[in-house]
Amino acid sequence: MTKPLIVVNFKAYGEVCGEAGLGLARACEEIGKETGTSIVSCPQMVDLALVAQSIRAPVWSQSSDAVSPGGRTGHTTVKAIKGAGATGTLVNHSESRKLLFDIEDIVKRCREEGIVSCVCTNNIRTSIAAAALGPDFVAVEPPELIGGDVSVTSADPEIVSNAVEGVKAIDRKVNVLCGAGVKNSADVAKAIELGARGVLLASGVVKAKDPRSVLRDLASAL
Amino acid sequence: MTKPLIVVNFKAYGEVCGEAGLGLARACEEIGKETGTSIVSCPQMVDLALVAQSIRAPVWSQSSDAVSPGGRTGHTTVKAIKGAGATGTLVNHSESRKLLFDIEDIVKRCREEGIVSCVCTNNIRTSIAAAALGPDFVAVEPPELIGGDVSVTSADPEIVSNAVEGVKAIDRKVNVLCGAGVKNSADVAKAIELGARGVLLASGVVKAKDPRSVLRDLASAL
Amino acid sequence: MTKPLIVVNFKAYGEVCGEAGLGLARACEEIGKETGTSIVSCPQMVDLALVAQSIRAPVWSQSSDAVSPGGRTGHTTVKAIKGAGATGTLVNHSESRKLLFDIEDIVKRCREEGIVSCVCTNNIRTSIAAAALGPDFVAVEPPELIGGDVSVTSADPEIVSNAVEGVKAIDRKVNVLCGAGVKNSADVAKAIELGARGVLLASGVVKAKDPRSVLRDLASAL
Amino acid sequence: MTKPLIVVNFKAYGEVCGEAGLGLARACEEIGKETGTSIVSCPQMVDLALVAQSIRAPVWSQSSDAVSPGGRTGHTTVKAIKGAGATGTLVNHSESRKLLFDIEDIVKRCREEGIVSCVCTNNIRTSIAAAALGPDFVAVEPPELIGGDVSVTSADPEIVSNAVEGVKAIDRKVNVLCGAGVKNSADVAKAIELGARGVLLASGVVKAKDPRSVLRDLASAL
Repeated sequence: MTKPLIVVNFKAYGEVCGEAGLGLARACEEIGKETGTSIVSCPQMVDLALVAQSIRAPVWSQSSDAVSPGGRTGHTTVKAIKGAGATGTLVNHSESRKLLFDIEDIVKRCREEGIVSCVCTNNIRTSIAAAALGPDFVAVEPPELIGGDVSVTSADPEIVSNAVEGVKAIDRKVNVLCGAGVKNSADVAKAIELGARGVLLASGVVKAKDPRSVLRDLASAL
Repeated sequence: MTKPLIVVNFKAYGEVCGEAGLGLARACEEIGKETGTSIVSCPQMVDLALVAQSIRAPVWSQSSDAVSPGGRTGHTTVKAIKGAGATGTLVNHSESRKLLFDIEDIVKRCREEGIVSCVCTNNIRTSIAAAALGPDFVAVEPPELIGGDVSVTSADPEIVSNAVEGVKAIDRKVNVLCGAGVKNSADVAKAIELGARGVLLASGVVKAKDPRSVLRDLASAL
Repeated sequence: MTKPLIVVNFKAYGEVCGEAGLGLARACEEIGKETGTSIVSCPQMVDLALVAQSIRAPVWSQSSDAVSPGGRTGHTTVKAIKGAGATGTLVNHSESRKLLFDIEDIVKRCREEGIVSCVCTNNIRTSIAAAALGPDFVAVEPPELIGGDVSVTSADPEIVSNAVEGVKAIDRKVNVLCGAGVKNSADVAKAIELGARGVLLASGVVKAKDPRSVLRDLASAL
Repeated sequence: MTKPLIVVNFKAYGEVCGEAGLGLARACEEIGKETGTSIVSCPQMVDLALVAQSIRAPVWSQSSDAVSPGGRTGHTTVKAIKGAGATGTLVNHSESRKLLFDIEDIVKRCREEGIVSCVCTNNIRTSIAAAALGPDFVAVEPPELIGGDVSVTSADPEIVSNAVEGVKAIDRKVNVLCGAGVKNSADVAKAIELGARGVLLASGVVKAKDPRSVLRDLASAL
């Protein structure tokens, strides 16, 4: 069974451009080791190889394109993500919405290259649809709660439990993460109770005054 | 006056995923130093910080998004590009086509952040339009010649000279590069003769058996 | 149970711009009436209201946008489609690929406005994913066969039967159409045998010398 | 010299779905005839042929795609727009943003098909860039004023006069329209005074209680 995960999405926040991004990734690695939990960093796209080659904890890409390697300026292939040393990628997101056909294609490429795919979704129906594409994870995040102060686990617990139920009915091997507004150990504990295998969060860590203490608190629930 | 440039776009070629990308960037740096020319590397997006922090020669991003730093998954801001250590970015390309409004926005952000912008275009009209947006460079590349064996400087020299003339009529500070099919020193010499300040190329270097000797030959024309 | 359908997608073919489009829609109506079958016309976007108000047979839109009515230049809302007199819409297509989130949103808007939604897909996994979004129809079309001379029912019958099986396992109310290369009554008969409730076709009718005789032949299989 | 124009963009407003759209187009025709002015209707995409074949006043499309006629589901070619009976098209818009390369391509197709192209822009630089593509009109509209109560002619008159100056410096044959917040004859008079050849407006007419009286007032300034 998959060990529960805390996935930290650095997004395009100004707070983690340049050296600060590597610093946050090191904090994720350190607290993961200290607490014996799996904390995944998703640094900014341009920092991916640098971060992946500087820490041992898992690093995922924030995005990927549905193309083969070749003459394609500005595109990020799954092969390039793997070559950079990352072990997974987010696929689709309310802030990085992808074509249905491209999500299917990227998930397949991840399977072929042996890297983890985590499709982010916005409601129960899209979570079930995503599960049909066979990713490793589906991360459900109601867009109206993303970046806010109220955790999805309090504001809309049924979206999590129903997404878990719907996803598992399609494919038991797909695990569900939940996100949007996740801030502390109570939110993580509740997510696990609702059937999620972990959480996906961003601002709660990235914009925290002391990310280490937030990460330590989050990890304490696993 | 701007020193002539050789810009090497690594694109998403499988040949330069992972360590090989850094290897090619080192070759660009080495031959640039050896020949006293300015050879710019545009590594794959995920390798940008790693490459920029490993070499001293200029490194540009292959692409950028028209957004401010913030909660935007998978986006690459100009600030992140600068934070990664790059000193410029390609903007728009036949393989990475951008909205008119976004090109204008990205060029403005580059100006504000003090990094070089190079808008790639596909014909004379779009080159002049791009010049009106005030970038540092416009790189004109007829899409049907990209990745091929015939240089734009032989196949369609007028597109280069007319683009130079049109661009300079709009804004004398904007310099023109040319690309598509550029392979050797004769192509570079001809580009300069037609009024370009350098060349943008990809497969001719990336897929070469011996990129160093190709780069050395290209540089010999400057 | 839904009556079998023949859906004719006019695409953006030059043959059916202007009056010729209305002419083809009238042919669909006429042969539908003559044969007692349901032949749906999907005229070019700009002809939708004109066609829908000129014939009594069902007319669907080729596309729709995932937006509410409002200040959105160039967008086509589900409300506008209904207002034009159409009774359904294609959603997504290999030639008009949509975001996962937008497909879900458009299907929901169709349900609310009481018009038929038909999500076009490119393989078995995307067909099952589409079914999870609750449309009326999923139309599976392998992109490599679209516009060609070999029907999907001969070239890849399993994609049809497996899509039917997968779709029905998710939601028995969703019906499957099949398309790509469909040309004659044998193709239609085979589609029905494989579990489809009809066919989606374009060039086979639009580019035919005598569309009426092709339509008559197709209808003879239902 | 081009006669001054009032261009009414129906957008995707719910108020003009179905019959109401044709009703508004008839009002535009009627007041144009009554006042001897040229009032152009841009109905919703799906209503284009119906409206163009019901009135004699000019009708433009709200949008167009940069593709040739052919197997392209959901696309609107310039040929289809012309076939529908429209005599022009908007190209690009803050609400329908297009790729630089596609704007150039659509403008060229309009020139070839003999229909009017009007590229909508958001600031002075993009207006000049658009002029370089050789359209018939450039319509400058600061996005923050679109749909609001303050006319661009009061809020930012310099954007209009500077756009006129910049556009004319590139190509004297290109005329400038202005839009965003235009509501009455004073706004139109001011636009003409600033060098514009007319106005582009939407909500001021579409959402008016009595569009005829608004149109009559607007026309009185020409």
